[in-house]
Amino acid sequence: MNAFLTHGGRLDEACTHFGGDPADWLDLSTGINPCPWPGAEAIRPAWRTLPDVRTLRRLEETAAACFGADPALCCAVPGSEAGLRALGCILGLPARHVPLTYGTYAKAFASPPPGHSGPTVLIVTNPNNPDGRLHQRDHLASALEQQQPGGGWLVADEAFADCHPEASMAGLVTNERNLAVTRSFGKFFGLAGVRLGFVLAPEPLLTQLRRLLGDWPVCSAALAFGVEAYADARWIAATRARLPERAARLDAVLERHGLRPTGACPLFRLATVPDAAGLFASLANAQILTRPFAHYPRLLRFGLPADDAQLARLDAALALWSAHG
Amino acid sequence: MNAFLTHGGRLDEACTHFGGDPADWLDLSTGINPCPWPGAEAIRPAWRTLPDVRTLRRLEETAAACFGADPALCCAVPGSEAGLRALGCILGLPARHVPLTYGTYAKAFASPPPGHSGPTVLIVTNPNNPDGRLHQRDHLASALEQQQPGGGWLVADEAFADCHPEASMAGLVTNERNLAVTRSFGKFFGLAGVRLGFVLAPEPLLTQLRRLLGDWPVCSAALAFGVEAYADARWIAATRARLPERAARLDAVLERHGLRPTGACPLFRLATVPDAAGLFASLANAQILTRPFAHYPRLLRFGLPADDAQLARLDAALALWSAHG
Repeated sequence: MNAFLTHGGRLDEACTHFGGDPADWLDLSTGINPCPWPGAEAIRPAWRTLPDVRTLRRLEETAAACFGADPALCCAVPGSEAGLRALGCILGLPARHVPLTYGTYAKAFASPPPGHSGPTVLIVTNPNNPDGRLHQRDHLASALEQQQPGGGWLVADEAFADCHPEASMAGLVTNERNLAVTRSFGKFFGLAGVRLGFVLAPEPLLTQLRRLLGDWPVCSAALAFGVEAYADARWIAATRARLPERAARLDAVLERHGLRPTGACPLFRLATVPDAAGLFASLANAQILTRPFAHYPRLLRFGLPADDAQLARLDAALALWSAHG
Repeated sequence: MNAFLTHGGRLDEACTHFGGDPADWLDLSTGINPCPWPGAEAIRPAWRTLPDVRTLRRLEETAAACFGADPALCCAVPGSEAGLRALGCILGLPARHVPLTYGTYAKAFASPPPGHSGPTVLIVTNPNNPDGRLHQRDHLASALEQQQPGGGWLVADEAFADCHPEASMAGLVTNERNLAVTRSFGKFFGLAGVRLGFVLAPEPLLTQLRRLLGDWPVCSAALAFGVEAYADARWIAATRARLPERAARLDAVLERHGLRPTGACPLFRLATVPDAAGLFASLANAQILTRPFAHYPRLLRFGLPADDAQLARLDAALALWSAHG
């Protein structure tokens, strides 16, 4: 069970524990868009040569435009998780965050020692993972104003923010603010295997980040996919409209079976249920993988089914669980 | 000119300065095998899901077996350059290295301050880039014996060592030795855009490295290509035999035009010539990119031409340069 409590997407462990091949499983354990950006299919990355430096700059500019951020303050990283860990290393400050959030923070940052009164990093995931809570930009700007005078930082992890541009702090990143924003390519664009993310931060911090990551921070596929995907305004707009529709249909199914989905993020829904472990196991026996959480025995996160057939499969498995529950 | 002095492979800059499209150029500015491992063509990486954790372990085991190293002490990194920078951050010691070597060391490690008597990292590139000098394993083992008692480290950068298994320190990495070895996938296998390398090091260091790099250190393509390529003993053996043959033919052409190639590494040859900048420019005007070095006005590095046609093109351009020189 431990493997499923750390990250979603552990289909390998699911097969070991519950049988079947990965292809048999319906993986609802992640917040990765199940309908990926289709342009990647036709692109043949330039594997033979080193990733092109100018294309890297163009990727950073294109992504920054999509985020509404200063292109000079945007640095590509090999996944937003890697970006967060690098930030933890560079900032070298203890961090505070809400108890139920992305587990990587505890690995990337130390906790403040008891009685700590020095500067800290406040990490806010927006929208939060797994409960989908969305903070308004004004609220976070106030938090930054409290952090900065004592030398503290605000890190806004916007890995799931692509559907909420109005809440993003990306446009507030300047050289004068102790504010860093992390973004993820793989979740919204549905291509998590590429390992591409971004850190938006003041120049001195980006200089240290680039020194740590080196001259080729992401692979040739990340460059080739990213420059086209972030410029694909039509697909981005259509996906921003489509994902909430799909999430509403998932909510209707969850509610029909007595689960209470919450949150503003359409890429995943958090359900409250008296025995989440029982529901997890019941779904796993139907080869549907969901995401449980250590210390939260009443919570189970559901990723978005890709289509009506997948939603019907989930519906049927939930009906079986309800009948035996 | 500056762009060409930092790294090879800057075809974008070459087009800006000397004209043409990248496809027009013969790029001999890197040490990347121009005849890549052919298996990548048929592999479709799993871009939609997170890189699989078990495949990552299998990659590390397969690569370790190829290096003759302990699989428990082998960690995949997104390119050996990124691995070296992470080592610089984790070891936190000033480093010594020979003056003419890979430029990344100066960025990843501080130089010892004047009068420094504390522990250092000794970085040895084996074979060295760009002069191809090969150190015997016994020689490096002696250097390690000198480093370790004072708390120092030996880092053997074996990015170009695939043709010299007998000289590799990989098998000497244990938990008891202050020895780290870095390896590169992209050079020997000719797939530099993948960003895959390895750090072999004692467990406590690898724990810190994994904490810094996170749970998905390399992309899905790196996993898919790497597990098959490092297990392709036939291609590896054939390439170890073929590369020196090609290098000998390149040497013959260079010598015919009065250049004096040196070194043991078949992926590149270092030529000595009175006016390397003049030769660089003459070849660039024929849209052949080579690798000059700051502070070494008599040195020019040549990567391996892929076939007889490319070698003939170089031969003709050198003949033109000789005639006008």
